[in-house]
Amino acid sequence: MNFYVLTLFPEMVMSGLNTSIIGKGVEKGLLNIEAINIRDYAGNKYGKVDDYPYGGGAGMLMQPGPVYRSYESVVDKIASERPTRVVYLTPTGNVFHQDMAKELAQEENLIFLCGHYEGIDERVLDKIVTDPVSIGDYVLTGGELPAMVMIDAISRFVPGVLKNEVSAETESFHENLLEYPQYTRPEEFMGEKVPEVLLSGHHGKVDAWRREQSLLRTAKFRPDLLKKAELTEKERQFIQKSLENADK
Amino acid sequence: MNFYVLTLFPEMVMSGLNTSIIGKGVEKGLLNIEAINIRDYAGNKYGKVDDYPYGGGAGMLMQPGPVYRSYESVVDKIASERPTRVVYLTPTGNVFHQDMAKELAQEENLIFLCGHYEGIDERVLDKIVTDPVSIGDYVLTGGELPAMVMIDAISRFVPGVLKNEVSAETESFHENLLEYPQYTRPEEFMGEKVPEVLLSGHHGKVDAWRREQSLLRTAKFRPDLLKKAELTEKERQFIQKSLENADK
Repeated sequence: MNFYVLTLFPEMVMSGLNTSIIGKGVEKGLLNIEAINIRDYAGNKYGKVDDYPYGGGAGMLMQPGPVYRSYESVVDKIASERPTRVVYLTPTGNVFHQDMAKELAQEENLIFLCGHYEGIDERVLDKIVTDPVSIGDYVLTGGELPAMVMIDAISRFVPGVLKNEVSAETESFHENLLEYPQYTRPEEFMGEKVPEVLLSGHHGKVDAWRREQSLLRTAKFRPDLLKKAELTEKERQFIQKSLENADK
Repeated sequence: MNFYVLTLFPEMVMSGLNTSIIGKGVEKGLLNIEAINIRDYAGNKYGKVDDYPYGGGAGMLMQPGPVYRSYESVVDKIASERPTRVVYLTPTGNVFHQDMAKELAQEENLIFLCGHYEGIDERVLDKIVTDPVSIGDYVLTGGELPAMVMIDAISRFVPGVLKNEVSAETESFHENLLEYPQYTRPEEFMGEKVPEVLLSGHHGKVDAWRREQSLLRTAKFRPDLLKKAELTEKERQFIQKSLENADK
């Protein structure tokens, strides 16, 4: 899968995606990440890509021309008959979530457009952007970090990137439940012992304990997720009882 | 303001926060960002910091000792009488948003703990974490990118970091409305002209147009935000009418 990032900070994008898993995916040839410097398409010898907003206002805007030309260079390179989707990182966008990551991982090529300064001229956005996306309700300096976040989340769904292919699904949001607590060596740390059941070697009991912990954590921290989870009637009663006991 | 990031990928964190605004904040001495390599606190000559989970399961967990010792090194360095808050990036956490960024920007020191592999031993989390935070409902390779996202969003609230101090507030989520479209040079781009009103030089009309555009965008893309926004009765009617017209 090929990721093309249109940005004013290409080095930041490349070095920030250098973690073990994504880096190995690149080494294995499963992922290809390229950062395209929009400034290289400024069309003037000063590398100027921004200007004042019409109608007044604070800050500078990215001009449409350089953005469009950098986009064109990628489209020419891909040379695909199918149009390539262009993700624009913006607070106006659809909120990113795990299902969207999985869906975008079906694409062979994806282009990310990272805004900076106070934003990008609306006309070029209208022309090229297919997927306006926000990673959350907070304001960031530019689109680079959110693009990196999305590339990380999407890459995990590309076959072969995770050692254990089931992992992308079983972790964290499996069945809309939060993950259970985990423990490793040493058996005792600062006076705290690993829960007995995990040392029992009894797989059925371990699984049951973990499921209970997931249910309790989700009920406590993310009751909104719990509504979407598929639970047995017995499990619903267990949660209800636990919450009642906690209230006492 | 001092940010301390406990991580297995210190270079990734440092190079990924090198954008114009954050970089300048560091240069000006307003921000100080340090990445502490947890592996330096492994306590063994191999730099081993992970082990298998008790009770079985895929992948490796980060052991409690190295994490705790790297945390202690930062606490010793800060030498503050007030305990320092420790943010742990986890899908189990409270969802990050703009108000949380503003609130965390009041701190003088903040520690971020970045998990990797399948997670971190629960006992050390219980001991040191004060603020479990999630940046959204998606699964990432590690806590580094979310920590960088949070540092970026929080830094914007540190006085002096943004040229225009009002910017952190007026952008994107001002009054729970999405930003209006913006335009810069040239006046005509690929046949598309800048809206007339923005060239009029009439500030009142420009402001009114921008407000309308914000209202319409928010109504279209984020009706959930609109409920929280303070609108006049006239504005509510305007939105209602526009939505009705769009339906026809």
